Amino acid sequence: MKKIKVFEVGPRDGYQNVSALIPTQEKKKIIDGLAKSGVTHLQVTSFVSPKAVPQMQDAREVAVYCKEHYPKLDILALVPNLRGAKDACDAGIRHISYVVSLSESHNKANVNRTREASVRELKEIAFSYPDMKICVDVATAFGCPFEGKPADGELIRFVGELYSKGFREICLCDTTGVANPRQVREAASAVMETYPDIEPAVHIHDTRGMGLACTLAAVEAGVSRIQSTLGGLGGCPFAPGASGNTATEDLVYMFREMGYETGIDFEELLKLSKYQKSVIEGNYSGHHVMITAPQACGKRGGR
Amino acid sequence: MKKIKVFEVGPRDGYQNVSALIPTQEKKKIIDGLAKSGVTHLQVTSFVSPKAVPQMQDAREVAVYCKEHYPKLDILALVPNLRGAKDACDAGIRHISYVVSLSESHNKANVNRTREASVRELKEIAFSYPDMKICVDVATAFGCPFEGKPADGELIRFVGELYSKGFREICLCDTTGVANPRQVREAASAVMETYPDIEPAVHIHDTRGMGLACTLAAVEAGVSRIQSTLGGLGGCPFAPGASGNTATEDLVYMFREMGYETGIDFEELLKLSKYQKSVIEGNYSGHHVMITAPQACGKRGGR
Repeated sequence: MKKIKVFEVGPRDGYQNVSALIPTQEKKKIIDGLAKSGVTHLQVTSFVSPKAVPQMQDAREVAVYCKEHYPKLDILALVPNLRGAKDACDAGIRHISYVVSLSESHNKANVNRTREASVRELKEIAFSYPDMKICVDVATAFGCPFEGKPADGELIRFVGELYSKGFREICLCDTTGVANPRQVREAASAVMETYPDIEPAVHIHDTRGMGLACTLAAVEAGVSRIQSTLGGLGGCPFAPGASGNTATEDLVYMFREMGYETGIDFEELLKLSKYQKSVIEGNYSGHHVMITAPQACGKRGGR
Repeated sequence: MKKIKVFEVGPRDGYQNVSALIPTQEKKKIIDGLAKSGVTHLQVTSFVSPKAVPQMQDAREVAVYCKEHYPKLDILALVPNLRGAKDACDAGIRHISYVVSLSESHNKANVNRTREASVRELKEIAFSYPDMKICVDVATAFGCPFEGKPADGELIRFVGELYSKGFREICLCDTTGVANPRQVREAASAVMETYPDIEPAVHIHDTRGMGLACTLAAVEAGVSRIQSTLGGLGGCPFAPGASGNTATEDLVYMFREMGYETGIDFEELLKLSKYQKSVIEGNYSGHHVMITAPQACGKRGGR
């Protein structure tokens, strides 16, 4: 039975797209619920400027809470720069994600610098924090809202550049949901064949309904690390047209039904997703909604 | 380049789940739009009792319109019994769909008789209308809301029974969206290996977000006939928990991106889906909504 490592990135990627501030207490409760459901890899926050992303102003508190309460889990935080890496490290984080876009235009829109400058900063972070595990999220790996599909070989060349600088944890991110299953399969296979000691992850959006199809294509190509968000939250504030990520509960359900092992309890996760929905809608009273129909409740849930 | 035959079943399967009556004129306009988009297989109505399904009371008018205006297209109608087959034949229809559920409980709930009685009626239709092409839709092929998953070998045994009675056009229907990609792949492969002269179709729902993943699994297993509905309309009035079919525009988009050929113009279809939405919401004024974002607009469209 093949094992899938689910990386829940909702508390970072999902919440940063929610405009109303989610109380820190509620974030902790949802993280508790994720841990209880069996999620073992959690990207819990982002050490960005609270001015740029007010939702992440409690980054330190959330990170400290997670490291204290869940010392055995793989707790990640996203950092946009060296300053963020310092804050993450100070809060006890030992595994960070760092985003570089494959496309120059998206990198500029996202972090206001060239890709080269982003890679330079990444090297500096790695040099300054040698004990920090670093996952490089390659954004717009399958296409960019400004530049379209990457040129043939562009992705694998860039992965090679990261590889040559010592990075082995690489996530191929479909930032705006333009990937199709064939593309995901081919990209993941190319990375694994060219660099057998890279264990790639994928980060897939469900913009055009292909979330699970692309995720499955990755897994059947040999990928075992999947990023997703509870409830299918997410998107990208700096990429027009981006909509939600693949919902964790949807993929946990699919993989369970197909005989894969995620270690995550689908029913618990589904309850939690409904609870999270009530929290985000500002409608939480401590009551959990009882689930009667056996169906996933990503964005699809309401219909 | 592999060709996919898309069977658009929205005007039957979709509309029968819409409670407000859709004006016949609008149904014709949408069928015109489907034909213009390049759809060549169209299930346009159902010859059922207008008391049971008032939405289908214009079955004859719609069928006659299609046969007159689109003599080169493959125009199908669903019939529940011999009486329906006679009405369909009188209206000029030469290709019908007939539903039998794999599960006894669903067959009873759906057509109020045993599966055996359904198969008997099917044989009578075939005997009475020897020139009629018949597609047998096997409902609950992957699971039933009352009985759960079919026992091992149950589906292939039933397909064998239909085969022995001379039926070669068989559609495996995931009536309530419980199928997973592995199950679809295994079932389709088993049918094609056991009965090489059956060219199976699949009819997939998107209840749990697996619509495209299951459809792709079928196609990669060798299936080339896919039933779907514009806008992801549909469900099953007699199956609790059933939600919409896989949206035609979603799958046309995916297959186009993957290099398959459907012969259908995605942009036309997307415009039509938006128009259909306005019709169903009773909100049509002859203006088409302009589409700006390149995204599919099944049920997902609104979010």
